[in-house]
Amino acid sequence: MASNVLPRSVQRLIDEFARLPGIGPKSAARLTFYLLRAAGDQALDLSAALHDLKEKTTLCSNCFNITEQDPCAICLDDNRQRELLCVVEEPLDVVALERSRAYKGLYHVLHGAISPVEGIGPEDLKIEELMNRLQHGDFGEVIIATNATLEGDATTLYLQRRLAGIEGLRLTRLARGLSVGGDLEYTDDITLTRALEGRQSL
Amino acid sequence: MASNVLPRSVQRLIDEFARLPGIGPKSAARLTFYLLRAAGDQALDLSAALHDLKEKTTLCSNCFNITEQDPCAICLDDNRQRELLCVVEEPLDVVALERSRAYKGLYHVLHGAISPVEGIGPEDLKIEELMNRLQHGDFGEVIIATNATLEGDATTLYLQRRLAGIEGLRLTRLARGLSVGGDLEYTDDITLTRALEGRQSL
Repeated sequence: MASNVLPRSVQRLIDEFARLPGIGPKSAARLTFYLLRAAGDQALDLSAALHDLKEKTTLCSNCFNITEQDPCAICLDDNRQRELLCVVEEPLDVVALERSRAYKGLYHVLHGAISPVEGIGPEDLKIEELMNRLQHGDFGEVIIATNATLEGDATTLYLQRRLAGIEGLRLTRLARGLSVGGDLEYTDDITLTRALEGRQSL
Repeated sequence: MASNVLPRSVQRLIDEFARLPGIGPKSAARLTFYLLRAAGDQALDLSAALHDLKEKTTLCSNCFNITEQDPCAICLDDNRQRELLCVVEEPLDVVALERSRAYKGLYHVLHGAISPVEGIGPEDLKIEELMNRLQHGDFGEVIIATNATLEGDATTLYLQRRLAGIEGLRLTRLARGLSVGGDLEYTDDITLTRALEGRQSL
């Protein structure tokens, strides 16, 4: 919403909100005026949380999940099944799988999926880092848990080819309990549990 | 989204986003992870804008619009029709009216409307401040530009009674070009212009 009646600091916050995905100029203005009237320090709390997000978080140098300590808590946890590795597209997928409580192994976050349309190739993902972990680690099984989308399937296919040569490594993917075309992070816990239980050999 | 896998700073930002109106826990997580991956300093820019919002803005002690300087630019503008006063519910309504370019007078922002259901009475609005301005100012006409809602109409009725006693003051309201039940800030510029032109005596 372009306007020269609004104070600069108000317009600036509207513009920043409108840069976020799924928030248009009208919603951005609504959020801004809501915060102007909100009780207490809600705007300042949000400001501080945003500031800390970038200052305090980093990627785990091992699994590339978001973390405040490197290596992350999951990579350091000796109670997890360390011979089991689950490859996901995004950190939010780790959250979804942890929520299901059906998986107790380690993770590897690719940070995306292969997408020729968007110009994302294997070299843009954490795939060489995955190869490195598999060569130096002692994994018995890799579960490829990409989204059930075109891009997720393309990534699975690519990983299948790359990992086929590693001896003694079982390759699986999540059972097609996932609704086709759906996003992993929106899958309910039970469906996700079933998909983990029924994982299929590649 | 409650979770013990997420770093504290990430969870904290998700919680803060989820406190905003119209943003659920899923959207809050999406926004947070978007900002984690966003190029440049987008999270820090948003953080700074939020910080400045509360630090730099105040209410004009005259018209109660949001401003960085008190009195605000509109109250100080000698080119405006200073005998004309438009009473609105919210600062966003001032933005809508300014955008229509059909109004060149001054404003008074009530910061709400009378709503027995929500327990908002006349004493919660900037109505005594309005009476004060009218007694000490030199206004020839007051345009009551509340929303075309139950609450807006109740506020108009109340103001009509309170202001009826002031001699030589013309009382008008926006023409019912507004769609009934609609919000003033979402009205398109032309409808708003027509509503201003056809304003009716009370």
